[in-house]
This record gives sequence, C-alpha cells and structure tokens, in this order.
Amino acid sequence: MKPRFAQLFAMLIWLLASLAGAQDHDSLPSWNDRAAKQAILKFVRTTTDPSSPNFVPPEQRIATFDQDGTTWVEQPMYTQFIFALERVAAMAPQHPEWKTTQPFQSLIAGDKAAIANFTDKDVEAIMLVTHTGMTVDQFHGIVKDWLAQARDKRWNRPYTELIYQPMLELMQYLRANGYRTYIVTGGGQEFVRVYAEQVYGIPPEQVIGTALATQYTHDDAGQLVLTRTPKLLLNDNSSGKAEDIYLFTGRHSKAAFGNTAGDQQMLQYTQTAGGAPLMMLVLHDDAQREYAYGPAQGLPDSKVGTFTQALYDQAKAKGWIVISMKDDWKHIFAWEK
Amino acid sequence: MKPRFAQLFAMLIWLLASLAGAQDHDSLPSWNDRAAKQAILKFVRTTTDPSSPNFVPPEQRIATFDQDGTTWVEQPMYTQFIFALERVAAMAPQHPEWKTTQPFQSLIAGDKAAIANFTDKDVEAIMLVTHTGMTVDQFHGIVKDWLAQARDKRWNRPYTELIYQPMLELMQYLRANGYRTYIVTGGGQEFVRVYAEQVYGIPPEQVIGTALATQYTHDDAGQLVLTRTPKLLLNDNSSGKAEDIYLFTGRHSKAAFGNTAGDQQMLQYTQTAGGAPLMMLVLHDDAQREYAYGPAQGLPDSKVGTFTQALYDQAKAKGWIVISMKDDWKHIFAWEK
Repeated sequence: MKPRFAQLFAMLIWLLASLAGAQDHDSLPSWNDRAAKQAILKFVRTTTDPSSPNFVPPEQRIATFDQDGTTWVEQPMYTQFIFALERVAAMAPQHPEWKTTQPFQSLIAGDKAAIANFTDKDVEAIMLVTHTGMTVDQFHGIVKDWLAQARDKRWNRPYTELIYQPMLELMQYLRANGYRTYIVTGGGQEFVRVYAEQVYGIPPEQVIGTALATQYTHDDAGQLVLTRTPKLLLNDNSSGKAEDIYLFTGRHSKAAFGNTAGDQQMLQYTQTAGGAPLMMLVLHDDAQREYAYGPAQGLPDSKVGTFTQALYDQAKAKGWIVISMKDDWKHIFAWEK
Repeated sequence: MKPRFAQLFAMLIWLLASLAGAQDHDSLPSWNDRAAKQAILKFVRTTTDPSSPNFVPPEQRIATFDQDGTTWVEQPMYTQFIFALERVAAMAPQHPEWKTTQPFQSLIAGDKAAIANFTDKDVEAIMLVTHTGMTVDQFHGIVKDWLAQARDKRWNRPYTELIYQPMLELMQYLRANGYRTYIVTGGGQEFVRVYAEQVYGIPPEQVIGTALATQYTHDDAGQLVLTRTPKLLLNDNSSGKAEDIYLFTGRHSKAAFGNTAGDQQMLQYTQTAGGAPLMMLVLHDDAQREYAYGPAQGLPDSKVGTFTQALYDQAKAKGWIVISMKDDWKHIFAWEK
C-alpha cells in the first residue's frame, strides 16, 4: 500500500469507528452517561458479539418489559382503572339500576370517601362490568375511542403520551440489535394490545398480560364471535410473569425491566437462565418531573407501585440495576425535549 | 432501444418469468397439479400482491396448522399417547405400587382387553403421571430422549420422520411469502415445542397447544424452577383453537389447515375474518401409503381423528378445500421420494 492510501485507509477506519461510537452514543440520547446506561450498552455488546462467551443467538434474544411504572406513568392510578371508572360514568345512562347498587352508586355520585374505601370486590365488580360481556372487537373499539379523547389530569395529555422516552429508546436500541421486545404486564393483555403497536412498536403477539377467558360462540345474529367472559385465565403478576413468559415463548428472557415487587420473579427468571442477562428496576424518585414514591429509599408509600426496601436490597444483592429517574434520565417524556 | 437490446431485453423478461414460474412450480413439488395445489398458489398470489383487493399486510400474515393427522401421522394412536405409555413402562421400576394400581397394573401387564376399555379417567391418570411433577426443562429432556430412540411400528422410523412432506413444503412456501406459520394443536404445547423447530422450522413461540399450568417455585435445593402441575390451563381443541389463536396473537389466521371436527372452529375463525382466506382439511383416504379412516366418504370410523360426514358437507358448503392424500399428494413422506 502506498503511504497515501495507507493514510486514507487509516482515516476511513477512524471515521467508521467514530460513526460506530456515535451510533452507540445516539441510541440512548435521553439517558445520562451513568452506570445504568453503561450496563445497557455492555449487555448489548456482550450478547451480540459472536466471539463473546455470553453471545445470545438471535432466535433467543427476548427482552421483557413490565408496563405500569416501567414504560409509562402509573400514578395516581393505573390508566386501565381510570378507563374503567370513566366507562362506568359513560355506561350509567343505560344502567338506571346502578343508582341504587354499590359500588356504582358511590362512583356515580362521586362519593370520594366511599371510593377511597372500595374493597377488592368493589374494584373487581367495576373491572368486570367494563371489561366483559362484549366481543373482543367491540372491546378493542371501546378502548381505542376512549384513548383518543381521554386526558390525564396533571399534564392534560393523552395517556399514550405519558410513555417514558428513555424506555422507548431502550426498546428501539434492543430491537436494532436483534432483540424481540415484549410487554409483560399485570394489566390487561387486550387493553395494552390496542395501542402497543403504535406506542411501543410492539405487535400484539408480543404483548403478554393478565387475561380473561374468551368464548368462541354464536351471537344473537348467529355469527360466530369471540366474547370476553369474567373468568380469569392468566394472572400476569409475580410468579405469573415467569410462567406466562414460558407459556407464550417457551424461552427465558435475556433482559427484564420492572419497577415493583410484582416484577421480582420476572427478573429472577431472567437471571437464572445464565449467561450475562440484564435486570433493571425503575425507581420513581423524581417528584418534580414525574412522581416519587415507594418505600425504597424512604420515598412515600403509595397504593400503586410497590418498590419496597426489600426489593431494593435484593436488587443490590443480586446485581440488578436500579434506574434513578431523577439522575439517569435526561428527559422523561418525548415532549420535554 | 436498438433492436438487439430490445431482443435481449425480451429474452431477459421471458427468462425471469420462467424462473418465477419455475419457482412457483417447484415450491410444492410433492403436490399433484389439482385443485388443492391451485388454491394454495392462488391464495399466496392474491394475498401478497399489493395491488390485490385481498392483499394482507406482512404483519398480519399468519397461517395455523393442526398437527395430529394434518402435519404428521396420528394412527394407530396419537404419538404423545404412545410416549405416555412407553414412559409408564420406563417409570414402572420406580413405582412398585403400580403393580396393584389401575390403570397402571393393566398397562404393565399388557392386558390388551383392559387397555381397550380404558376410561377417560384412566387415560388422564396416565397422561398426568407422565407429564407433570417435573420441571419444564426436565420434561423437555425426557421427550427429547424418547424421540431419539422411539420407533413407530409400521415403518420402524423415528416419529419425527412421519411428517407429511407436502405439508412441510406448504409451510416453507408460506414462510417464503412472509407468512408466520403456527402449530395449533390439541396435543401438548410443550411436547410439540421439543421438536417443532427442528422438524417444522417453527420456533417455540409459534407453537400453541393444550397446556397445563406451570408454577414458578423453589425446588428442594432452593432454586427457582418452573414446575409442571396437573392443572389444565388451555384445552386447545374445537372452540379453544380460535380462543387460543387470539390469546397468543391478538389476530385472525389467514390460512388454516386441519383434519377433524376439532379443527372446525379454527377454520371458521379464519374464514370470518374476511378477505380471501384459505381453509383446508386433510382427508386420510390412502390406506396403502398411509391410512384411510374417518366416516366421511364411507371410510372406516376410527377412535383417533374424526373427519365426519357432517364436516365434509360443511367443507363443501363453505368452500373449504378437502385434500385427498391419495390424489393430491405425489409423495407423503420425505423418504418416499
């Protein structure tokens, strides 16, 4: 090689290396350059490099994300429960009997004291009346219509804009490296499937969640339809997350992301598969930009989301990475940028 | 364009067209050129041509296959039941109590009269003792080891060689055209997942089947493991096939292949989604090369596989295509070629 070509060649190598570096850097622009971001980059490097002892073949690249509190806001109430409450109000005119039936009576009257004391059975009654008895297509339409007009109280934005931008970037970065991203949520599988493709880029077959049994039967017009029934088929919380990931995929996840004790088993299931897996927990410690809650680190307790001190201690002991929203995330929402 | 180039250009077009034609022809070499094959080719043409009114976007391209009797031999018994029977024999030395406990006593003694009269409860007892109480990984290993040494009685071949070559070609042809192929079986989901990738080219997340609940718990050594329990979670037969396709994918299948009344709802579910879907049923009418059974067309009845006359009539009425193994398939098994 003549000196001039050697020089050009060296420049080209340098340019390519810079581009590669820049690409790495740009994949997670909403993350501050701290341990959490470094752990993500290292995980991808290690598991996608064929010469690495922890290389993961493409077909086994699965990453699982809890949703509420992990990929979008879960305060002051789970979005799906807000949907249920607003549905009761919308359905009330067709249900005059609710004026004298609990828990609907208190709900319609806006009796805050009574609502604050709702039992699990009250909540279940509200969930069932708003989530069952229709076809799957009808339910899909109801949720879609609701999402189009519903606004959260704090930011006055559609709920589907309350997605954490750093987690979206993480999903995209993993997909760009051959990972299939799954939502694994304690929330309703069919609720999340309505917007998962548009919001997360995750197709319905990669949304696993709590599921009611459907029934394939004839409707009044004699057409065969899939109807939603009140029978709980999958409770996708705690151990259910590990069990359902296996049920749906027959595999272990190689990376898992959660934020509460209910995600613990999913992270354990990911870790026990060996290799160099990635387990992360989102800590809500940013009251100014989002919320700060969960007993861990002395944050206020909350009915929603339970990042306990025990979970925090387990994370430290097992090498799970705790993401501080305050310190690790440059932006929380896309519209902040 | 100069004449010479025009000529060359025309030749090139002709050559490409021939190659494309040849490719179409070669995709299903084990199929005779009859209505069934033509229907498959037409389905793929219609649903993958962007200018067609029945074009199916790639993300919606799902094809579902029943297994027993549709993609592999189900006579004289379902392979999974043969596995269970042979497992009982293998496990017997560790279970001296079976010498005096039914149905195991009859089974170990080879009492054919008693075995022929086994009740559903007897069969269930045999299935549970051979399919539960171990971890999912242990079960996977047991099935894998069994498949490696088990041979069918008629051809003296591994069961995984009793796959219908025309159906394999069909799966490959659909995949080459952007379809994701799913097994949707009344058989055990975890049983089929052991060999589906190797035998069908179908990854575990695209195997849907009858499923027992697993439990994510600590084993005796304190390790967290997924254990198989005797609780039936999904009964993937009849209506269950439609329900489970929706549960796993959130979508309708665009093509469905079965062979018994238990596949009827899967075909209906496929048809009611609109467009130009493909519904096919395999008729076992070739006693010489495989088996001939099922009341349809006056074939002998059989305990396994129930292609009833009613199903045959429904197929005719609804435009479902009946595949005659005798007339439509040039070869049945890969080793016949």
